[in-house]
Amino acid sequence: MALIVQKYGGTSVGDIERIHNVARRVVGTRQAGHDVVVVVSAMAGETDRLLELAHGIAERPNERELDVILATGEQVSIGLLSLAIQELGWKARSFTGTQVRILTDEAHSQARILSIDTRRVLEALEAGEVAIVAGFQGVTAEDEVTTLGRGGSDLTAVAMAAALGAEVCEIYTDVEGVHTADPNLVPGARKLARISYEEMLELASLGAKVLQTRSVEYGKNYQVPIHVRSSFSASAGTLVVAEDAAMEKVVVSGIAYNANEGKITVARVADRPGVAAKLFGAVAEANVVVDMIVQNISQDGSTTDISFTVPRPDYHKTLEIVRGVAAEIGAAEVLGNDQIAKVSIVGVGMRTHSGVASRMFEALAREKINILMISTSEIKVSCVIEAQCVKRAVRALHDTFGLERPPQEESPLPTQTPAPTGRTARGRRPGTARARAARRR
Amino acid sequence: MALIVQKYGGTSVGDIERIHNVARRVVGTRQAGHDVVVVVSAMAGETDRLLELAHGIAERPNERELDVILATGEQVSIGLLSLAIQELGWKARSFTGTQVRILTDEAHSQARILSIDTRRVLEALEAGEVAIVAGFQGVTAEDEVTTLGRGGSDLTAVAMAAALGAEVCEIYTDVEGVHTADPNLVPGARKLARISYEEMLELASLGAKVLQTRSVEYGKNYQVPIHVRSSFSASAGTLVVAEDAAMEKVVVSGIAYNANEGKITVARVADRPGVAAKLFGAVAEANVVVDMIVQNISQDGSTTDISFTVPRPDYHKTLEIVRGVAAEIGAAEVLGNDQIAKVSIVGVGMRTHSGVASRMFEALAREKINILMISTSEIKVSCVIEAQCVKRAVRALHDTFGLERPPQEESPLPTQTPAPTGRTARGRRPGTARARAARRR
Repeated sequence: MALIVQKYGGTSVGDIERIHNVARRVVGTRQAGHDVVVVVSAMAGETDRLLELAHGIAERPNERELDVILATGEQVSIGLLSLAIQELGWKARSFTGTQVRILTDEAHSQARILSIDTRRVLEALEAGEVAIVAGFQGVTAEDEVTTLGRGGSDLTAVAMAAALGAEVCEIYTDVEGVHTADPNLVPGARKLARISYEEMLELASLGAKVLQTRSVEYGKNYQVPIHVRSSFSASAGTLVVAEDAAMEKVVVSGIAYNANEGKITVARVADRPGVAAKLFGAVAEANVVVDMIVQNISQDGSTTDISFTVPRPDYHKTLEIVRGVAAEIGAAEVLGNDQIAKVSIVGVGMRTHSGVASRMFEALAREKINILMISTSEIKVSCVIEAQCVKRAVRALHDTFGLERPPQEESPLPTQTPAPTGRTARGRRPGTARARAARRR
Repeated sequence: MALIVQKYGGTSVGDIERIHNVARRVVGTRQAGHDVVVVVSAMAGETDRLLELAHGIAERPNERELDVILATGEQVSIGLLSLAIQELGWKARSFTGTQVRILTDEAHSQARILSIDTRRVLEALEAGEVAIVAGFQGVTAEDEVTTLGRGGSDLTAVAMAAALGAEVCEIYTDVEGVHTADPNLVPGARKLARISYEEMLELASLGAKVLQTRSVEYGKNYQVPIHVRSSFSASAGTLVVAEDAAMEKVVVSGIAYNANEGKITVARVADRPGVAAKLFGAVAEANVVVDMIVQNISQDGSTTDISFTVPRPDYHKTLEIVRGVAAEIGAAEVLGNDQIAKVSIVGVGMRTHSGVASRMFEALAREKINILMISTSEIKVSCVIEAQCVKRAVRALHDTFGLERPPQEESPLPTQTPAPTGRTARGRRPGTARARAARRR
């Protein structure tokens, strides 16, 4: 008998039939002898409906009031799911963020969880009840309603699992788990059985929309095993856990892409201290979150080029801002391109395997795909390319790193012998030095 | 500068345009120099939508969970209205029942208010904010969400006005105020400028659907002046206040009717102690609220007839129950009629004027309307008639008591001189003794 936290997203509770379906799953887990705490999102479409109402009244709604309005979506879901579980003859009790004291800071619309009072949930479990907690919402010390940002229900679930010391936090979604690439783009994409928090973080922030980034960070910090699985099937999904030795044998775990960004280049800007600070200070003031930043070495000893990417909805606004500060920072030209995509390979094995980046570049070159920007971290390599090439790029990379085949964990450690093609087991190719674009912030 | 509580119903906040309209009204009151606390209901249709969702899952939803679900309707309204007021450049802050600690007992779906913590509302007012409070909802000492029953937002408003010592509680609705009769039925129906709590109570419970009964009781107990007025016009409505001398000059203030009941007669039941208790005990067990009960004297010394009315939705259920206990209480027959209506005249002046009931009976007789049951209280006379006659009955009574003409408060006290027609000023006809149907409970 274990304590399991289950989180169901908006699609899983999208209508009455689906709520009954979730209730049956929850009861199934109870029948297996486990204690269950359920975290639910608002019914699919509900948050958008509420946002539309608020934006119908105010172009920029006050965030405190917006949180009051948005929190109702989850409050309806918890009540309905509780009723559905009771209909099956089991005891259930719903809790709002206020009732279970999911204490957050006061940053409305993107609050951070400070603590969770587990008393009422534990009392419910002791009384044999399923505890159903509203996702996405919290409360401040002053009893103000807060929300945790888009995808915040994942965070609620993981934080609840951490606070309760749950055995696992199951995140139910409309996909089977985390795949080596987007199955819509790559027919051979394979479901991963296990993945490390670090890899999941890179995949999540790189645009694989399965798990909210902050929930993975939280899971990593508190060592909560996260099981990403489908609410429409009984099969196991992907377990997100701490890195282990077997994982390191796999050089590349997955391919992510993000086709929703724009690229801006400030050309031949003065190569002197404070320029980057001024440039990105102006962008930050407009609340634009910059993703990649690449600055190369000075070509002529006095000027350099700085390129960066931003979410596409912020592209035009950012372009204007940058043109506004161009003269001030002595830039010759500001160039923009919103028809780009970012393709990334992710894997903890990169830490111990060389030549991964160059294999990526070679694969793209073979496809005659031009690389516009490169950025790397410990466990990922990202390339910005023309948007129209994204499908070919993801497929070529999936192929090159042999991701359609399951990793052979029982195989010997990778050798340095060149494999004949890119379709061999992963991590067996000789490496060239990893390219690393010079990057300063 | 006064403190005013304003309550807006679901129709008044039924869509975004109407919410803007309410915001303009509230700001108008602020601009006149008053502090304003606003109580709002859920947007029209929202409570029904939520009920439908809940009943889609469970035929008899658990009341605790239903309250969690229903309370979201008002929570959305307070946030939206707060945004609309902020759009006009004024400060506003919303409060849920939990946040403002509208403490209730634990009777989910029909909770009673125990106390209100005015601290946060007063803080908001001191900060120059309009305080917007969710109607209909409260919270128990254990932080459970409760609701106050249909029309509960009226009660929230009056209770809030009492707790704050407000100068007046304005109840905004979609009618101009309280009328001498239903204007849809009687073209000459006139808006009353003032009415006593007692009369309003009789009118509210008798089916004039303007103010929730419990809110009037609360207003009476705490002497809160209630101003019932239209949110779609600027003109004054009806002030519900304590009875004064001027009111007593008016014999009949208004005509109410209720065409949503059924009548059940237990004929020739044994005339012995305990019969009524057994009969109505069985009915009460089924949670049916009985309205009128009439028992006449024993005709033959050993049996009597008991008649009573129940809400029409409960009619068939009640008929079955009564048939079930008929043998036990020695009743010869159980008769039912669900095509009835109750017509009532209400006025505090009845206490001091005689002959009012007989004038009512005469008026109905002139219209050839048969009276099936009669029941009276200090300030009202009710007659049950055939449902098809209700329109004619209300019009004839409105005419008989001269309600289309405003009361002449400056006129001398009523004389005992017979007036030539029923269309004279009220209360001037000579009285016969008031008929009073024998009534035991």
